[in-house]
Amino acid sequence: MTRIVRTVAELREQVRAWKDAGERVGLIPTMGALHDGHLSLVRLAQTKVARTVASVFVNPKQFAPHEDFDAYPRGEARDAELLDSVGCDLLFAPGPAEMYPQGFSTTINLTGVSEPLEGAARPQFFGGVATVVTKLLIQAQPDIAVFGEKDYQQLQVIRRVTRDLDLPVEIVGAPTARAQDGLALSSRNAYLSPEERAAAVALPNAMKAAIAAVQAGERVETAEAAGKAALAAAGFRQVDYFDFRDADDLSRLGPDALHGAKARLLAAAWLGKTRLIDNMDA
Amino acid sequence: MTRIVRTVAELREQVRAWKDAGERVGLIPTMGALHDGHLSLVRLAQTKVARTVASVFVNPKQFAPHEDFDAYPRGEARDAELLDSVGCDLLFAPGPAEMYPQGFSTTINLTGVSEPLEGAARPQFFGGVATVVTKLLIQAQPDIAVFGEKDYQQLQVIRRVTRDLDLPVEIVGAPTARAQDGLALSSRNAYLSPEERAAAVALPNAMKAAIAAVQAGERVETAEAAGKAALAAAGFRQVDYFDFRDADDLSRLGPDALHGAKARLLAAAWLGKTRLIDNMDA
Repeated sequence: MTRIVRTVAELREQVRAWKDAGERVGLIPTMGALHDGHLSLVRLAQTKVARTVASVFVNPKQFAPHEDFDAYPRGEARDAELLDSVGCDLLFAPGPAEMYPQGFSTTINLTGVSEPLEGAARPQFFGGVATVVTKLLIQAQPDIAVFGEKDYQQLQVIRRVTRDLDLPVEIVGAPTARAQDGLALSSRNAYLSPEERAAAVALPNAMKAAIAAVQAGERVETAEAAGKAALAAAGFRQVDYFDFRDADDLSRLGPDALHGAKARLLAAAWLGKTRLIDNMDA
Repeated sequence: MTRIVRTVAELREQVRAWKDAGERVGLIPTMGALHDGHLSLVRLAQTKVARTVASVFVNPKQFAPHEDFDAYPRGEARDAELLDSVGCDLLFAPGPAEMYPQGFSTTINLTGVSEPLEGAARPQFFGGVATVVTKLLIQAQPDIAVFGEKDYQQLQVIRRVTRDLDLPVEIVGAPTARAQDGLALSSRNAYLSPEERAAAVALPNAMKAAIAAVQAGERVETAEAAGKAALAAAGFRQVDYFDFRDADDLSRLGPDALHGAKARLLAAAWLGKTRLIDNMDA
């Protein structure tokens, strides 16, 4: 069975023992409510290192007061079973007092890549993400850490803060796992009604259509507008963004062309009370 | 001779070699312009660990645009000689591009202990300090790091951020080194004219008098006012603060008594163009 530890001291002791035995260690930070997407991160880590540690911590600092911190799905027993089923070696599941003891006063803030898109829609989000991920990387001291491309801007923020703070870890991005119809797997998909779940496929479909249109010579602005219209027609009540962006720093592209070689289409939209995000190589 | 390295890679290689040989390592972060106060930090580290690393980096992020970044005294050859004279093993002297490469976007901010006193007088100061010290601790990965009590609030900020980010290092505070007349040693004392240097002793004298008065039963507020008056009489043109504070979190004390067991008197005042700070156990 996957071993569960709840303190930084136990985590470090286990990682130290593995490293002393010459085994490289991979960390997979999660907020639990695990699905096949998370398990694919563990499997990817297992191709690169001998030992894998998944962390489960629903981080209060990355939720605003009006967001779904209390409602966010939790279920440690099932998470542990799923991790066991793929041979994950350790589950680090700290409580809030282990992560943020009384008197905790520190926040890690970024400018640049953290500011548009999710940063504009959720102002405290990336400060919370950068703070907890930095802590997890310092706590576990892994050789690699794996994050899903599903949260693409988060991945770029983590790459940036890891470089900026000289954290001695390799950040690995893993391809988004998708349902058969193409919807990106997400813990928040559990919020969707059956009707909403059926409509949700419009998100990846609109994105694929926009990328195909731009690659066929359509103007970026026109393709973005058509994508937003397709989402509205499919029943999405609000589109926060549907933007072609520079794949590294997420800055805006010019109106007429994908500049250079690397672009990414990123989208966030609301279906009822559920906010879905997705992104694709463009 | 004390070896000088300029890259994180060389620093880590040397520290790793020492640790692999079973030798514990101490880091002494400085901004150069070394004096006996800094050397006393190296000597204190040498009583605790086998190997000492001093860093010299004048950190632009902790100076505001109107402050003395350009004028701050620099002299690497003399710094290296002084470190050699006390047997310091390594000098880490990175350039700005090694510490803050193009695209650097991260700042570590604290609330609480960073907010009053120096934090009020210099709003970006502790964000800059916390960011560079965190980087140095992650870069060097020392067993201990030694900071002077001369910068007492900085020491408390560093203790806080080290705990908050789970950095695996022991923070050691070292007593303030003083000239024979009692003035705290500081690189900024070099800015003082001979007349100002003679007047500067009023700062530690006023502090000792205030502490003696309070210990004899004087009200804190009255002792603080008398101290400020003494500094004005001695030629200080402005007193930023002259405050008895809780020694741990630097919160305000009640007006009548030093609450609990641990209090600290902290002061900052201007003599001509030079800002002097000092603090004492109260």
